[in-house]
Amino acid sequence: MKLPTDPAANLAALIRCASVTPAEGGALGALEDMLKPLGFSVERPVFSEDGTPDIENLYARRSGNGPHLMFAGHTDVVPVGDEAAWTHPPFAADIANGEMYGRGAVDMKGGIACFIAAVARHVEENGGPKGSVSLLITGDEEGPAINGTTKLLEWAAGKGEKWDASIVGEPTNPDALGDMIKIGRRGSLSGSVVVNGRQGHAAYPQLADNPVRGLMSLVDALLYPAFDEGTKDFQATNLEVTSIDVGNPATNVIPAKATATFNIRFNDTWTAETIQAEIHNRLDQAAGRTKYRPGKKTPVDYDIVWRDRPSHVFLTRDDRLIETLSQSVKTAIGRKPALSTSGGTSDARFIKDYCPVVEFGLVGKTMHMVDERVALADLETLTQIYQRFIEDWFERGAA
Amino acid sequence: MKLPTDPAANLAALIRCASVTPAEGGALGALEDMLKPLGFSVERPVFSEDGTPDIENLYARRSGNGPHLMFAGHTDVVPVGDEAAWTHPPFAADIANGEMYGRGAVDMKGGIACFIAAVARHVEENGGPKGSVSLLITGDEEGPAINGTTKLLEWAAGKGEKWDASIVGEPTNPDALGDMIKIGRRGSLSGSVVVNGRQGHAAYPQLADNPVRGLMSLVDALLYPAFDEGTKDFQATNLEVTSIDVGNPATNVIPAKATATFNIRFNDTWTAETIQAEIHNRLDQAAGRTKYRPGKKTPVDYDIVWRDRPSHVFLTRDDRLIETLSQSVKTAIGRKPALSTSGGTSDARFIKDYCPVVEFGLVGKTMHMVDERVALADLETLTQIYQRFIEDWFERGAA
Repeated sequence: MKLPTDPAANLAALIRCASVTPAEGGALGALEDMLKPLGFSVERPVFSEDGTPDIENLYARRSGNGPHLMFAGHTDVVPVGDEAAWTHPPFAADIANGEMYGRGAVDMKGGIACFIAAVARHVEENGGPKGSVSLLITGDEEGPAINGTTKLLEWAAGKGEKWDASIVGEPTNPDALGDMIKIGRRGSLSGSVVVNGRQGHAAYPQLADNPVRGLMSLVDALLYPAFDEGTKDFQATNLEVTSIDVGNPATNVIPAKATATFNIRFNDTWTAETIQAEIHNRLDQAAGRTKYRPGKKTPVDYDIVWRDRPSHVFLTRDDRLIETLSQSVKTAIGRKPALSTSGGTSDARFIKDYCPVVEFGLVGKTMHMVDERVALADLETLTQIYQRFIEDWFERGAA
Repeated sequence: MKLPTDPAANLAALIRCASVTPAEGGALGALEDMLKPLGFSVERPVFSEDGTPDIENLYARRSGNGPHLMFAGHTDVVPVGDEAAWTHPPFAADIANGEMYGRGAVDMKGGIACFIAAVARHVEENGGPKGSVSLLITGDEEGPAINGTTKLLEWAAGKGEKWDASIVGEPTNPDALGDMIKIGRRGSLSGSVVVNGRQGHAAYPQLADNPVRGLMSLVDALLYPAFDEGTKDFQATNLEVTSIDVGNPATNVIPAKATATFNIRFNDTWTAETIQAEIHNRLDQAAGRTKYRPGKKTPVDYDIVWRDRPSHVFLTRDDRLIETLSQSVKTAIGRKPALSTSGGTSDARFIKDYCPVVEFGLVGKTMHMVDERVALADLETLTQIYQRFIEDWFERGAA
């Protein structure tokens, strides 16, 4: 029986499943077909929640005598966008000039394809890794992420699963394979500031209280000064005002209400709680200032509404995990990767509550774009990196 | 034959016409019935323009041997609002506790009713004013004002009409009859500032250009510092940002565009042209500042779109007109009115291109509100003021 040792073949099978969130599209079935011959037991739990689509997920484990390594990822993909603009169809896995085209090629069916190929090579060459390996794969990473990784982790942990380390196969490399391992992520928090004013005629501002004036002071306090200058491991904390909305069509009317919405990416100087407190403090201070509200002695009347749950900042300090992966990259490509905490959030933020976690996968340049594609050479190299990593990580654990 | 010497009877007839813009509602017909017995020739031109409702207007002239005084006003009224909240029906002209209730009671059917009563008393007592009197009445002051006073003035002037002075019967008194004559108005100008940024992911602000950051600098420059401190005749120039709109629902996305809309009320320090130039200059300067855009060396990319036509600032310096009216008020109520240029724009801004113009009418407190109403005593006093003014103004002209 032919084992799934070829990452390009594995990836082609996955790309041909049109698994745009929330559709499973056959992708988890394809995984199951690859994993069972390798000795994995496979479960496909479906999670539901009112107001969200049901999501299929997959948890596969190959038990062994030793520590437990978990590979995490997702088979769902973002929509294809302007399909007519693709050079090759987005679900065909066409190969041209040494590259395979398709939605999910790098984000992140490619990472899964390589990891499975790496395990398959172990099985073929020496009977498999010296411990337990599991794959925790969701179909809801690109969507609302409600019926995905968090529930899958809870569900597996509830059955007694314990992991010693995890690697997430997201495309972490900005330009070339081996550039970057992610060893942590900034936290993320969103909120809206609503300023309540008093409506009136634009010719009689003294009888009204323009909430835009108050909001200007508050937004100034959100944007300035900078929250910090960054830390040894993290970029500077950054806040973006993503929308301001008043919606007043009448230029002779002073509106009653103005809202600003913001997103803040914070580093390990802060926790979600301390950054919230800092924002409250800045807004309270600014609410008393009068630069834009001459003659108004009352503070700006505002409310703050925090949106969704915060994503907590994390930093992995597990040397065995980081060093083993880093060395595997160096062996394959000749240079050490940067250890970074940049970029957005990922499902690693949920996994870090269960075990040390790092992220390493393909090159992200074409992710979410038309003509998403991966070099076949990169698929082979990543497979070798994963294979070396699996071998060395279990080796060190045994040592 | 009974002449329309009773302002309350005149007003009741007008209130009973439901002339919410753009409906004529019988109001101009009622005026015609009052004016013809007084010797006025009456014309009712209808003006049209694509995309706006046709509007009926009225021009009435009583010719005499002497100068020409024009009274200007409107019979259209704003909507009744919450009709159930009215103590008395809005088109019934009910009287209670010495007050007449109805939409338009003070804004400004009441002013018209009093002016006609004043002319009627002249006719009854001494054969009429010693010169020409005309009424220039539109049905489109509270609406888009496109088919109203401007076209009526052009139409009348085109027929050879010339005026020596004009009085507009808008409710100019804030609290009590006789408080205030308006001898000018600030200019008004509206525009939108659109900042063009570059969309991106909130976690990668260095790859995007958040237009909200640029807009913050531009709005700061619009609001601060103050344009002037006011002049001898005018309040300080004031700018209100009436809306800011981005409309971005995704907190993890940096938007591509942000718009701020503003209205500026400017005094005689400026013309519409110089205030526009000042705003362009402020925005250009601010576009180069980087407080909110650390690391961005390019200026903020923005466009400005001026809305509608500007309303020009004006100040009437005609002593005969102002002094005669002021003295008439003092004779009736025992004190001199304030000469003011405060508040919004009015149709006087169009009339000032044809002859000196002032504004004086009833008390504005209940205008545009539920239970708009006028004291019967005020109707009588205003009629006496108008009568005295007409007599003295023609007298002075003859002198």
